Amino acid sequence: MVHRQMQLNIKEYQFIPPFNSPQLERPRAVVLEQSAKKNIDRFVNKAKNLGCEFRPHFKTHQSAEIGKWFKETGVSGITVTSVAMAQYFADHGWDDITIAFPFFPGQIDGVNRLLEKSKLRLLVTNSGIVKWLDKNLDKNADIMIEINAGYDRSGISIKEKSEIKEIVNSIHKTEKLNFSGFYIHDGATYKVDSENEIENVLSRDLSAFSVLKKDYPDVKYGLGDTPSCSVLDDFGPANELSPGNFIFFDLMQYKIGSCSLDDIALLVKVPIAQIKPENDQIIIHGGAAHLSKDYILENGNPIYGKPVYFDDEQKIQLIDESSVVSLSQEHGIISGAGALLPHINDDQSIWICPVHSCLTANLFTEYYSADNHKINKRILS
Amino acid sequence: MVHRQMQLNIKEYQFIPPFNSPQLERPRAVVLEQSAKKNIDRFVNKAKNLGCEFRPHFKTHQSAEIGKWFKETGVSGITVTSVAMAQYFADHGWDDITIAFPFFPGQIDGVNRLLEKSKLRLLVTNSGIVKWLDKNLDKNADIMIEINAGYDRSGISIKEKSEIKEIVNSIHKTEKLNFSGFYIHDGATYKVDSENEIENVLSRDLSAFSVLKKDYPDVKYGLGDTPSCSVLDDFGPANELSPGNFIFFDLMQYKIGSCSLDDIALLVKVPIAQIKPENDQIIIHGGAAHLSKDYILENGNPIYGKPVYFDDEQKIQLIDESSVVSLSQEHGIISGAGALLPHINDDQSIWICPVHSCLTANLFTEYYSADNHKINKRILS
Repeated sequence: MVHRQMQLNIKEYQFIPPFNSPQLERPRAVVLEQSAKKNIDRFVNKAKNLGCEFRPHFKTHQSAEIGKWFKETGVSGITVTSVAMAQYFADHGWDDITIAFPFFPGQIDGVNRLLEKSKLRLLVTNSGIVKWLDKNLDKNADIMIEINAGYDRSGISIKEKSEIKEIVNSIHKTEKLNFSGFYIHDGATYKVDSENEIENVLSRDLSAFSVLKKDYPDVKYGLGDTPSCSVLDDFGPANELSPGNFIFFDLMQYKIGSCSLDDIALLVKVPIAQIKPENDQIIIHGGAAHLSKDYILENGNPIYGKPVYFDDEQKIQLIDESSVVSLSQEHGIISGAGALLPHINDDQSIWICPVHSCLTANLFTEYYSADNHKINKRILS
Repeated sequence: MVHRQMQLNIKEYQFIPPFNSPQLERPRAVVLEQSAKKNIDRFVNKAKNLGCEFRPHFKTHQSAEIGKWFKETGVSGITVTSVAMAQYFADHGWDDITIAFPFFPGQIDGVNRLLEKSKLRLLVTNSGIVKWLDKNLDKNADIMIEINAGYDRSGISIKEKSEIKEIVNSIHKTEKLNFSGFYIHDGATYKVDSENEIENVLSRDLSAFSVLKKDYPDVKYGLGDTPSCSVLDDFGPANELSPGNFIFFDLMQYKIGSCSLDDIALLVKVPIAQIKPENDQIIIHGGAAHLSKDYILENGNPIYGKPVYFDDEQKIQLIDESSVVSLSQEHGIISGAGALLPHINDDQSIWICPVHSCLTANLFTEYYSADNHKINKRILS
């Protein structure tokens, strides 16, 4: 196949059937099962060697079937972002779930429903909500305090010593809440591009934990951004890791240095709709509705994915000269058509490595395996 | 309610129940039905007054129920982006559908299935595919040639005179294909911010149509970006309009000048998860998985939506000092918490006007009306 197309140049390439294999009607999210399982094993073992509990974040894959791959390695506690996502996994047999989002009162009915079948860990960021939770929970729940060590998303600032103390004390005064520890998610590691910088970011989180550990020595200290968990080997006072993205990785993680190309386990297969020799572009059916508009910069310009192919050893290779340079809702524009031409699949599709697999995965109703069986997943939030 | 909160400042504001109304557990896409119907009427009448056929694009709302609102005004032909979307609307009684995407062979089975119950219009960009279509279609279909007049997404360049002629001739030589005309979508109008600039962009499209009209006087000339259709009153040679976004409009369209705030018909209601007086921010449950990562620039920085409220006359008002400044998968960060405080709803939620309603709508499994009934929609692509 490659040889037939290698002989063509873009002016001559005619987008005309007949084709040798069934054609794709729409974009397809393909999970490379072996790579995903290898990623799971690697992270399970790393956590074990570090003496950390591994509570992987399931927001990335949102799949009961992929959840089973984790269960097979002995994982029993998981992390999610919403009550609805927790409900999905509770319905699929998970009974020890952290909802890694500051609890808000609108969640109470869902939380009480969940408590009927699962142990839950909730995050709080103020003491007022603690008292209210105690009054309104039907059963006991574990509580972590979310700490903001500098990333400045959710969490109570590590500088607010007295309020943190008040939250802990107010938890201890309740009947139904068990204080289980502290949680930090530091998304700043997704914005750097070297191991050194990841280490710099993480040092503020570990310092925050160290300060807290003096007063609260025997509780959980959880963190879990994928770049840190991938690259670093010392998490100091932390004793729980809950990364999510590592199950699939993506172009952003590859650029950060969190993974090799071979670790990437989610690709999107897209049909070609038009070849435009005049400006060396290919139009694909594959847009923001499939890849998401998250981007990284390449030579100063945003790109939304990179075409890839499998080499003779079935290893993923980037097509350097070619990028997804523009997305509308369902159309994508790929530059470097000439370089891509030899790597068009028999079914007139191309493989795209997404920039951010969490958002890409969220846009599909199902996955396919490399050998075309469907892998179920949760649909949207 | 407003008065109670007006007395609070952000340092004092405590995110503590009890609340007076049911709380929201997760983000909700709310369609303002009256505004949407007003938008439909306005565009139906405009097309009628211009003597243009109105074939609205249904990719924005993707809803059978909203489709009925169009049907009630006499609309019978529609536009979609994919075979799957066409199938959804065919299943809901639509039988005259343009698939506004260059046809590719992977679509043939779906197209033949659709032809059993609907009249179809397909777009082509080369002559090779025409012959193949004739061989592989089960029934007759209308064909439009997609023209690229300078936007440089899909379409055959208007400069390729002889290839365009060859496509037309090859269509005429087929048995099953009826040549119905030319189609242009010029997305460049979404990137400008004045009526003058919209007119400049559109002039290249109308020039392209004028050139073609000399050779092909009696066919359809269709275009349909929302900014042009909203702002301009003269479409020269065009005789068909198929905008989509206008059903909801959004922040981007408001900034371009395509609509007033009162025309905006899709808002996202999001629960508040944390108030951070120390940096004047509010954390919402509402992220890229709900709003999409499409952005506009505000003072040089990307924003992903603006908080709004309804004034005493139930008109939408922007909260100027407040913006959605950051999104991760399910978390959103809103700046200007102090300014927002008086406009927090009784259920501890806030209203967000999305940047790009097409992508936001695509991320929800259903809509709600303002009075809380569910409005069905298609789920993902």
